Amino acid sequence: MPAGALTRVGIGDDSAVVSAPSGSVVAAVDMVIEGRHFRRDWSSAYDVGVKAAARSLADIAAMGAVNTALLVALAAPGTLPARWATDLASGLAAEATRAGAGIVGGDTARADSVTVSVTALGDLEGRAPVLRSGARPGDVIAVAGTLGHSAAGLSLLRAGAVGPADRGEARDAVADGGASGPEAAPAAARLPAALAELVRTHLRPAPPYDAGREAAILGATAMIDVSDGLLADLGHVAEASGVRVNLSGAALTPGAALREAAALLPAAKSAGPRSSAGIALEWVLTGGEDHSLTAAFPPGTVLPARWHVIGEVRPGAGVTVDDTPHEGPPGWQHFR
Amino acid sequence: MPAGALTRVGIGDDSAVVSAPSGSVVAAVDMVIEGRHFRRDWSSAYDVGVKAAARSLADIAAMGAVNTALLVALAAPGTLPARWATDLASGLAAEATRAGAGIVGGDTARADSVTVSVTALGDLEGRAPVLRSGARPGDVIAVAGTLGHSAAGLSLLRAGAVGPADRGEARDAVADGGASGPEAAPAAARLPAALAELVRTHLRPAPPYDAGREAAILGATAMIDVSDGLLADLGHVAEASGVRVNLSGAALTPGAALREAAALLPAAKSAGPRSSAGIALEWVLTGGEDHSLTAAFPPGTVLPARWHVIGEVRPGAGVTVDDTPHEGPPGWQHFR
Repeated sequence: MPAGALTRVGIGDDSAVVSAPSGSVVAAVDMVIEGRHFRRDWSSAYDVGVKAAARSLADIAAMGAVNTALLVALAAPGTLPARWATDLASGLAAEATRAGAGIVGGDTARADSVTVSVTALGDLEGRAPVLRSGARPGDVIAVAGTLGHSAAGLSLLRAGAVGPADRGEARDAVADGGASGPEAAPAAARLPAALAELVRTHLRPAPPYDAGREAAILGATAMIDVSDGLLADLGHVAEASGVRVNLSGAALTPGAALREAAALLPAAKSAGPRSSAGIALEWVLTGGEDHSLTAAFPPGTVLPARWHVIGEVRPGAGVTVDDTPHEGPPGWQHFR
Repeated sequence: MPAGALTRVGIGDDSAVVSAPSGSVVAAVDMVIEGRHFRRDWSSAYDVGVKAAARSLADIAAMGAVNTALLVALAAPGTLPARWATDLASGLAAEATRAGAGIVGGDTARADSVTVSVTALGDLEGRAPVLRSGARPGDVIAVAGTLGHSAAGLSLLRAGAVGPADRGEARDAVADGGASGPEAAPAAARLPAALAELVRTHLRPAPPYDAGREAAILGATAMIDVSDGLLADLGHVAEASGVRVNLSGAALTPGAALREAAALLPAAKSAGPRSSAGIALEWVLTGGEDHSLTAAFPPGTVLPARWHVIGEVRPGAGVTVDDTPHEGPPGWQHFR
């Protein structure tokens, strides 16, 4: 387990003690549950660890804070192989390390299915937190990270387009030194690399944690992580800020990988390219679980290259695309 | 939900922000799971909330810290009545308030059974944490709070000695203004008050949180909360400190309520008073979930009345009672 640079007392006592240099602590809790957020036949234990950690770590980043520590509660059946639990821990540890956090506490208990509850702690380094409520008319809306990739990857899994070798490739593409080694490399992966990358984003989301700190330093007025879908999450920002968020359809045009993935689905095969483009755009607008960061910045802010401007803030309420309300549900439907 | 005096950003954003005045944060996570830590036919939702909060809050107190905040993750079936969830929240809120903490974050998701995972945060007020590892030969061992009451209460529940009215009385004895009102008062409780109190300790543990801070100020060298049983938990202290803990059998003589409860059990009825006394002593030594605090203090420390001296620290290893190793398992067996 990574100790974390700011850990004063780690696992092994009644509680952990973590430094909070700026005199406050940022904290968030999130859960992943078997059958709802993952399936053990699709996700390796390592994948589940990465996803469980990423969900909470992204919430800290979305406040403009840096991650310092994780606490993990695992409920699992007595029949769970010991290797599964250690691989889960490896995934949690790898993602915590990538975010700069230690794993400082945990609890385990028996239950009928696997539930992983992760609490993340962070530090604001003396800055004010970036809330959902600070967006002002005239601000630009930008995003760091992918949109719709996780949803596309899930659709490929659901459609049976992903073989064990593809999942193996998806895992192997992350240099983890953990659960998967070179022996897991697929002899004959069926999916092109760009599509395997979509599956990987679903199985192992990779939020751009340091973009959160960067946005805060750049003066972001509001920020949120895209966990429920872009429209739904910017809807939270619009509501908390008392503004309308207007997105640019052109700026959200799906990339080639998303269009290619959509074309593989049975629904698109029967309806042709126009349908593929529609499916891909839906992933961008409503797909959750990429855990990218979207933020509002004052007009004229010079943004680093990884921040892509996708819209602007206007007076009013709700979220529009090219000044038009989106039809259909704004957010992400979990798989049951 | 109680906001908590130190909460800067509460529920409603990606993360909470809680002040950490002394520049570090104390953190612990614990879970309660249906079928393992509670049964819905024995515990009200309010009871489960109190117990879930108390387990984590006690871990913070056992470091000598004061509680500041809770984050709660609830996994539950879609069939769970809405009232059950709000009563759970009332129990969590009441116990958080009793400990001085706010409820600052949460997550909910569907699962096949009820799991409540609670992360507690605390502040050391500038003191060093009281670890398990600081006990030194010559120190005295003392306890604040009850021992074996929760185990006795559970045994009464298991033996069918507790009727619905008794559980109602146990609930009603806590002035919560929440789940139970005057209408829940039993018309004819079957258990004497002292025994209903044991049941209440099992259903709604009431750790002496402020005794943790008090012990730290008094110079406690080691501390732990009694969650797994006195012998098991002091075994952790002995191991971490590299010492032997020797308990005084006389100081641990069970009180009248425990002896009376033991006498009601079928096993005791067949074997007489000697067996009752043995059962009651076993509860004191190995019963978990009272979440009392036990600590080591330098010799000569003048202890407030709620701290009862029960032993001393000697060179060596392990835990003894009157210099004799205890036979049987040292710790608490959950009910499956």
